[in-house]
Amino acid sequence: VPYSGDAVPLPEKSLIAEVRCAVSTRGSSIIRGIGDDCAVLRLRPDQDTLVTTDFTLEGIHFRRDWHPPESVGHRCLTRGLSDIAAMGGEPITAFLSLALPRDLPQTWVRRFTHGLLKLAHEHGVTLAGGDTAQSPGGILADIVVLGTVRRGKAILRSGARAGDRIFVSGELGGSAAALTAMRSGKKSNSLQYRRHFYPEARLQLACILRERNLASAMIDTSDGLSTDLGHICEESNVGAEIEPALIPHARVGKPAEDVSLDFALHGGEDYELLFTARPGKRIPPEIAGVRITQIGRVTRGRGIVLVDAKGRKRQLRARGWEHFRP
Amino acid sequence: VPYSGDAVPLPEKSLIAEVRCAVSTRGSSIIRGIGDDCAVLRLRPDQDTLVTTDFTLEGIHFRRDWHPPESVGHRCLTRGLSDIAAMGGEPITAFLSLALPRDLPQTWVRRFTHGLLKLAHEHGVTLAGGDTAQSPGGILADIVVLGTVRRGKAILRSGARAGDRIFVSGELGGSAAALTAMRSGKKSNSLQYRRHFYPEARLQLACILRERNLASAMIDTSDGLSTDLGHICEESNVGAEIEPALIPHARVGKPAEDVSLDFALHGGEDYELLFTARPGKRIPPEIAGVRITQIGRVTRGRGIVLVDAKGRKRQLRARGWEHFRP
Repeated sequence: VPYSGDAVPLPEKSLIAEVRCAVSTRGSSIIRGIGDDCAVLRLRPDQDTLVTTDFTLEGIHFRRDWHPPESVGHRCLTRGLSDIAAMGGEPITAFLSLALPRDLPQTWVRRFTHGLLKLAHEHGVTLAGGDTAQSPGGILADIVVLGTVRRGKAILRSGARAGDRIFVSGELGGSAAALTAMRSGKKSNSLQYRRHFYPEARLQLACILRERNLASAMIDTSDGLSTDLGHICEESNVGAEIEPALIPHARVGKPAEDVSLDFALHGGEDYELLFTARPGKRIPPEIAGVRITQIGRVTRGRGIVLVDAKGRKRQLRARGWEHFRP
Repeated sequence: VPYSGDAVPLPEKSLIAEVRCAVSTRGSSIIRGIGDDCAVLRLRPDQDTLVTTDFTLEGIHFRRDWHPPESVGHRCLTRGLSDIAAMGGEPITAFLSLALPRDLPQTWVRRFTHGLLKLAHEHGVTLAGGDTAQSPGGILADIVVLGTVRRGKAILRSGARAGDRIFVSGELGGSAAALTAMRSGKKSNSLQYRRHFYPEARLQLACILRERNLASAMIDTSDGLSTDLGHICEESNVGAEIEPALIPHARVGKPAEDVSLDFALHGGEDYELLFTARPGKRIPPEIAGVRITQIGRVTRGRGIVLVDAKGRKRQLRARGWEHFRP
């Protein structure tokens, strides 16, 4: 019995409050939950809200002896921004949860924060909160980014249809190539491997694709082409044919050279946009200063098939990207 | 030059898209950022959106040999729900980022998720997304909870004024007492220490406080009374006088006994609500089935002072809660 300890009769107002608070009146505002780059919430009538969360963990996503703190902060936020871009959205605000080992020098944190906030500022994103904790092991960060997109305009993974063409922005494989170089002991820096140390989320490109209704489905290449195209195929219930000769390979290192096909197919963390477009749509070869390349087409079948210049086909398995990792 | 690779003249529509996407039109929608239990965003005209993120880290917030997985999942979500309660809000949806060691048994994850989802269901909260990763060390979880509160109605830490009375819900110190018992090797379970293993966020109480405009400032006791009251004082620019004899001590263990004053003053993770009320407001001794106790009053000075039965005063220092931790 509520208020049972209260001898004074209750005013009606408080009873109303009681009932109101006991009965949840929240309708489900979730348009799209697990299974896309962001969750899509309808919190207001005219706009949808996008939410994405991404870990950045020492030893998994970066190494302190390989990555300058500014790069770790930059990459941490880019993971979230790129998920917003992958929905055709615009980022609004970010939240950072950060767990730090006791012995971490203060300068590391300062430089990390500098890298993160510099990027946030460039995109008009405010860091609005978060959590801090002591870490039992390495440095642990979790970034949450909230974004917005006009009602019903989010570009989902599930919109591809047989006959659509498949496009990718920029070049692929550069980020994985940087890790491999570092693992083999080569000094690597952001001059040779800009896309690894300071990747850009393709927000302006994403906005244009949305405004012009060019993309039927979209994802960012955070896990690598083979994995991420697999996600589009799975969510859209389609297959894909890719021509390896068309895939734009990143040029990295010193002297600069093209990365191998394996890197371009399976290497992650390039944060390019992979999207499909209906047959009628004209896709320019460059949008917002970023090269756009058609690499294949959506098929009725299941799975992803590589087709070489002579028309020979072989199945492409998602190799994931774990074996490139630190 | 955008579209520089495109020989075909551009239709006007695409130029408009270009400009629209280059110029950020997002106004600042952040009403309250860092420095409260949640960030407050104004994404729609009639309601404010609350966002909170909280880590749950193995070895810091729980130990696998002390806490059943269901309890870890329950406590993980409670951390977020309690922050929403502390603002007088209602939770809508949650996002879980989870990094797991390679060798973690699948049953652990299943039981953790069960504990978390059971609580989510009880509060009508949907788990709408998140991230998973491999952990370099122990189990790492980060929970994000989005909530809602009527425009301008969020109960902030900064609303206390000299002369307000200070109240706390339920009893304090039970959670810290459980940890101390376990550290000393005593078997402890949820029957003896319910508030430690399965704490309830005081959402209904919070809702009533908001609907009836009873609280001028509020926070949840996640870090312990001395620390959390310190946050209210700091954000409100006031001081406080507490009568230790009035503080409701938790009764825990077997045989059940009252926890010590130290636990009640400094032990965290009780997830009770600590709030202030203006002199005129009548505060019932029980709201929504939860005992409400006045423990002191807000003063003009700085710092928190303990006043004993004979009127003797001594300064209370925020001892934090780290030394009770696993």
